[in-house]
Amino acid sequence: MTDIAPAATRRDPNLKRVQAHGAWQGSMITELTVRGFTFRSDEPEAIGGTDSAPTPMELVAGAVNACLTVVIETVAGELGVRVDAIETASRAQMDVRGFRGTAPVSPHFRDYELTVRVASSADLAERTELARLVEQRCPAVNLVRDAGVPLTLSWHFTP
Amino acid sequence: MTDIAPAATRRDPNLKRVQAHGAWQGSMITELTVRGFTFRSDEPEAIGGTDSAPTPMELVAGAVNACLTVVIETVAGELGVRVDAIETASRAQMDVRGFRGTAPVSPHFRDYELTVRVASSADLAERTELARLVEQRCPAVNLVRDAGVPLTLSWHFTP
Repeated sequence: MTDIAPAATRRDPNLKRVQAHGAWQGSMITELTVRGFTFRSDEPEAIGGTDSAPTPMELVAGAVNACLTVVIETVAGELGVRVDAIETASRAQMDVRGFRGTAPVSPHFRDYELTVRVASSADLAERTELARLVEQRCPAVNLVRDAGVPLTLSWHFTP
Repeated sequence: MTDIAPAATRRDPNLKRVQAHGAWQGSMITELTVRGFTFRSDEPEAIGGTDSAPTPMELVAGAVNACLTVVIETVAGELGVRVDAIETASRAQMDVRGFRGTAPVSPHFRDYELTVRVASSADLAERTELARLVEQRCPAVNLVRDAGVPLTLSWHFTP
């Protein structure tokens, strides 16, 4: 039985691994490692941190912006739609009583406003199709929506 | 009516804003800005990126690790439990057919294994209470769970 390949070589080709490692540095700071990349998270001084990096949920918000951007670039390419610029803005609110444990409310986002500005020569039908496919296929946007967070996504196209 | 304070000064004190801005740099790269901090996201070359930074969903996984770490430090402090080290590992899988739009599957996590190692002198009752409160109050862990992702959280305590 020693010639059986390890499970890792026989994985479902549709499945992609996402891994991250974290090491606490004290005072709310976490050093994060993803493949060869390192980044940090911290908290404002009011929470006991030193405000040296984004908070964990700010990293999530940044990831939502980045994910939306990747999917717009991808879907625009599929549709043959030229895109010259993409700007995204996340504006969410959390009820801190969830994190503090002082009220039975969700500890994550209470609402989430996502605004995207796309500079593109796409016509109305192309814009509509781009928006539809992106909202359907974006991993991070769907993670937030599937969590029951009211998420509004406003599309603004400019030539 | 000009003496009415702007809405921003009369906000619910329990609500905390989380904001992020993203600017596309081409080739799957997004420059992200959160308050004064900047970070990047990219994709591997196979997806059209240059593999210069974590992917968006890797940022989410890192954020889950960091969030868990913050909540452990916070709850341990409340319980008067000494913690000497915290290490976290996220190991998730995504079905890429969701992102590609080639099958009606969720584009985000299909499953999520989260492992945490805590070096602490806490006794069994304290460990149990720490784990219970952290799982209840951690924003990012609950975001993933509320999204319907099967998430297993394994706690390992060492002296």
